[in-house]
Amino acid sequence: MMMPTHTPSFLMIPGPTPLPDAVREVMSRPAMGHRSPEFKQVLERVFPKLQQMFQTQSPVLLYTASATGAIEAALSNTLNAGDTLLVLSCGVFSARWGDMAKALGLNVQEIAVPAGQANTIESLQQALAADTQKQIKAVIFVHSETSTGALNDVPAFAKAIAEHGALSIVDTVTGLTADPFKMDEWGIDLAISGSQKGFMMQPGLSFLAVGPRALAAHQQVKNPGFYFNFTRNIKAQSQFTTAYTPATHLILALDEALNLLLEEGLEAMNHRHHQLKAMVRAGVKAIGLPLLVEADAQASPAVTAVYPPEGLDVGAIRKILKNRFSITVADGQNALKGKIFRIGHLGAINERDVYMVLACLEQALLELGASVTLGVAVAAAQQAANTYLQQQSKALVTV
Amino acid sequence: MMMPTHTPSFLMIPGPTPLPDAVREVMSRPAMGHRSPEFKQVLERVFPKLQQMFQTQSPVLLYTASATGAIEAALSNTLNAGDTLLVLSCGVFSARWGDMAKALGLNVQEIAVPAGQANTIESLQQALAADTQKQIKAVIFVHSETSTGALNDVPAFAKAIAEHGALSIVDTVTGLTADPFKMDEWGIDLAISGSQKGFMMQPGLSFLAVGPRALAAHQQVKNPGFYFNFTRNIKAQSQFTTAYTPATHLILALDEALNLLLEEGLEAMNHRHHQLKAMVRAGVKAIGLPLLVEADAQASPAVTAVYPPEGLDVGAIRKILKNRFSITVADGQNALKGKIFRIGHLGAINERDVYMVLACLEQALLELGASVTLGVAVAAAQQAANTYLQQQSKALVTV
Repeated sequence: MMMPTHTPSFLMIPGPTPLPDAVREVMSRPAMGHRSPEFKQVLERVFPKLQQMFQTQSPVLLYTASATGAIEAALSNTLNAGDTLLVLSCGVFSARWGDMAKALGLNVQEIAVPAGQANTIESLQQALAADTQKQIKAVIFVHSETSTGALNDVPAFAKAIAEHGALSIVDTVTGLTADPFKMDEWGIDLAISGSQKGFMMQPGLSFLAVGPRALAAHQQVKNPGFYFNFTRNIKAQSQFTTAYTPATHLILALDEALNLLLEEGLEAMNHRHHQLKAMVRAGVKAIGLPLLVEADAQASPAVTAVYPPEGLDVGAIRKILKNRFSITVADGQNALKGKIFRIGHLGAINERDVYMVLACLEQALLELGASVTLGVAVAAAQQAANTYLQQQSKALVTV
Repeated sequence: MMMPTHTPSFLMIPGPTPLPDAVREVMSRPAMGHRSPEFKQVLERVFPKLQQMFQTQSPVLLYTASATGAIEAALSNTLNAGDTLLVLSCGVFSARWGDMAKALGLNVQEIAVPAGQANTIESLQQALAADTQKQIKAVIFVHSETSTGALNDVPAFAKAIAEHGALSIVDTVTGLTADPFKMDEWGIDLAISGSQKGFMMQPGLSFLAVGPRALAAHQQVKNPGFYFNFTRNIKAQSQFTTAYTPATHLILALDEALNLLLEEGLEAMNHRHHQLKAMVRAGVKAIGLPLLVEADAQASPAVTAVYPPEGLDVGAIRKILKNRFSITVADGQNALKGKIFRIGHLGAINERDVYMVLACLEQALLELGASVTLGVAVAAAQQAANTYLQQQSKALVTV
């Protein structure tokens, strides 16, 4: 059975995430001059709201570029060729930053863990302690590793890095909004996110928060580039404009998305994602499927990676979810392609959506001949939701 | 817990029903002259598609008015004051047509059944047989009674009425698209539907199919009115225009909605609704809640009315569904207000949505202190879906 074309496609991938109506509707506004007083008013609203999202008083640069561009901006604006960068790698995206750093002529030192694990504070501390010559100028790590669903302990890592004296660069592309993030309180120097993730908007924008130590490092950099250049962009943004022509309509959408997120509230938003994580993990376990990230504390509140039942094809599961239910979940990436599927629960996703995907997943597995007791995943998710809501007062982070 | 404002509101009421994107997006088109060649092309597409929906070769009048207007059009264009109309009543809407007929000066004869029951062919046959003087000029009945979820046996009723010689007037406002409807094959004289139901579009338009016997009766009517006048409207529509200024943008939306429905196909569309009915009924029964319409064969594929657990308030259930899950289900109407709630499964609703509402309903009942075994409703609905899909080859109507 195929879904009729009038059934909306529902994205449960770790970005792009579903778009709220208000965010969609501004995209059809008339053209707007990017140097007009009207657009300046938009930026006067957007910049402080971005600072709130990162919990920082420092400037948050708004780039018309994907997050990969903003990561490059972070490296090229604060490090010189030959500088040593420590890369904590736990999956496709953190590994990509190592490749990027090499391409930029940096000296890369890497600590990698197997897929499904988070990086450890111990290995980071060990590497930093061994660096008695202070060769390591910066450390880059992901908050939430989108390819595996592993979650790193951002405040602990940032603290260790600050004590060493290196710059901390945090890829919080799928972390921000799902998990607490406190740039200033945790002493983070550079933090990057992208529009199509927890920000519930279309792809095309990225955000780079630049702390005072990062800005100081920038002053010493010989080739900071032009488009992503901190000085040029910060100067423009301090006057509530942009250095170069921005994607005006995406910024209108961002303005709406930020209103929705801040109306929900940072803490409520984090709790919602943690509740969804607990529900998805409980539901998947009830079906008997193994999780790629075994430890709850190391699991991302944004995306959950799941192994299919022995002998069942990931492609076949994804195809039934798509054709019979119009729900898209993600395949694994690189070495994990075809080995896992990833359920995104990031952005405008809620309790009701988890019930939907779990019931449909059971049906898909049954259709493929797997042994499934119908209803168990939803029941487990319902229990997990109720347990989470009862304990919601508990702290999300222990620093 | 309240839903964040970015969670889309999901309507599971028996209309208005959720709007597909294509249907929403045309509403923001620029102004269009209703006598322009461009708009004529729209009507050239829309009129034949409406005939397909009613399965008729006769004209289907397109009114800028709600379905109540189209029902009035059917009565006032085919009957004279003092004429006798037999009203088969099984709920709020069928009863409303009796009130309307009285207001129009007709002589109303009514056969009513208790809420939750369909009208019977026996009582209809009895009334027609008793009418040896052929006083009854027309019989009006609903296909699907929106206030209770009862389903009448349209082909059987139409056949009995045709044998008597009276005109048959069918309110298929929530019947069409959910259940088979064959105007010509079943010998129906007048049939009415509205835009915001199975047509998956915004309210504001109604459709009135006028068969040849109805048109002949119209010729004998002294005061057929002006706006809804058959002659004026049929003449205009035969030239692919409208008698008066139509709601141009709603007609653009109708054009899109009809494309989506006909692309799905009439039979697939009917099967989808019957599958959803089977799923909702199985799920609700699994929770242990009584259904207002007890007999499956008398139950509408568009809407299911459910009694709350003993001692639980319908308003409280609806409030949790709305506030915690952003799902709207309908209250009972008139005498049933506060006594039942109605789950709409009409229009752009699918299997996945039923899982969602049932899991959320269980959670709502639990929150209100009811004894609920979590997961049972979804499990029962999953089973019902699979059973239905396995037997889908079975006929939907036995004439």
